[in-house]
Amino acid sequence: MANLKFGKYLMETIIRKAEKSDTEAIFTLIKELAVYEKEPDAVIINKRTFKEHGFGKKPLFKCFVAEINEKVVGIALFYSRYSTWKGPTLHLEDLIVTEEMKGKGIGSMLYTAFLEYADKAGVERVEWAVLDWNRTAITFYQQSGAKVLSDWRTVQMDKKSIQNYFQKINS
Amino acid sequence: MANLKFGKYLMETIIRKAEKSDTEAIFTLIKELAVYEKEPDAVIINKRTFKEHGFGKKPLFKCFVAEINEKVVGIALFYSRYSTWKGPTLHLEDLIVTEEMKGKGIGSMLYTAFLEYADKAGVERVEWAVLDWNRTAITFYQQSGAKVLSDWRTVQMDKKSIQNYFQKINS
Repeated sequence: MANLKFGKYLMETIIRKAEKSDTEAIFTLIKELAVYEKEPDAVIINKRTFKEHGFGKKPLFKCFVAEINEKVVGIALFYSRYSTWKGPTLHLEDLIVTEEMKGKGIGSMLYTAFLEYADKAGVERVEWAVLDWNRTAITFYQQSGAKVLSDWRTVQMDKKSIQNYFQKINS
Repeated sequence: MANLKFGKYLMETIIRKAEKSDTEAIFTLIKELAVYEKEPDAVIINKRTFKEHGFGKKPLFKCFVAEINEKVVGIALFYSRYSTWKGPTLHLEDLIVTEEMKGKGIGSMLYTAFLEYADKAGVERVEWAVLDWNRTAITFYQQSGAKVLSDWRTVQMDKKSIQNYFQKINS
């Protein structure tokens, strides 16, 4: 919890664990990010499945939310990964703050909450991905002590390409 | 199962799920990879914890092994991740074949087993990381239909840096 300055006003910002009732707000932020990253059509899951994934019997991720005046204005969403060198690690999938609330330190509070969680969990490493044109984010991460790896590339294969692969090798 | 040619000989290669008794062999391959990637000291977990992580009450990863003459000569090790755009995904953490057995199609068989698993699991995407100087691997992945992303960078922060971060913000 912290008081952040908004113009003349100090507003109380609460960082807390996300609850099922936050689904709508979180999912809206995720779709906003997709627009910011120029891929609005890439979000193929819907709110109902997202709720089940995060708050069902077997949650697939954890999430902190930043709340101002009972409105969710940011999220840090993460899950466990595994390194065969380091053991269990955590992956920060999304760190999002609404356009309107950017630049007020809310992203930093969410980032800190995530790192506190990692510290308590005792993991040897946390990681995430950043777009190489997002200089603001890169500078922020580097100043916090994180390392941007220059020699690794992410490789992805979607469902359709997997199916094409089997068609090819079986023909 | 397939018969691969080794010089004059055809040898039966079996691809199967890893078992607890494979721990020693798998862990040896992981350490070999660390040497190949020029980071032999980066492996900080030991065989005992690795066994617990993979084959204990709450397995943190799944693994296929390639076996020739009852000897494990390759692995494909992976685990679940989550995309807020696509839902559940799979991450291929390690695809390793012993130096001696490289170039005989064993990596391809393990890769196919992983993709078959992904196909059955119905995930929308699989992903992994590749070193940008490993042209052989990159060409192999691209020819299979995977995409190497050029605009994303991996960011990592280790335990020590997380602790430094808290020292800095609390001082």
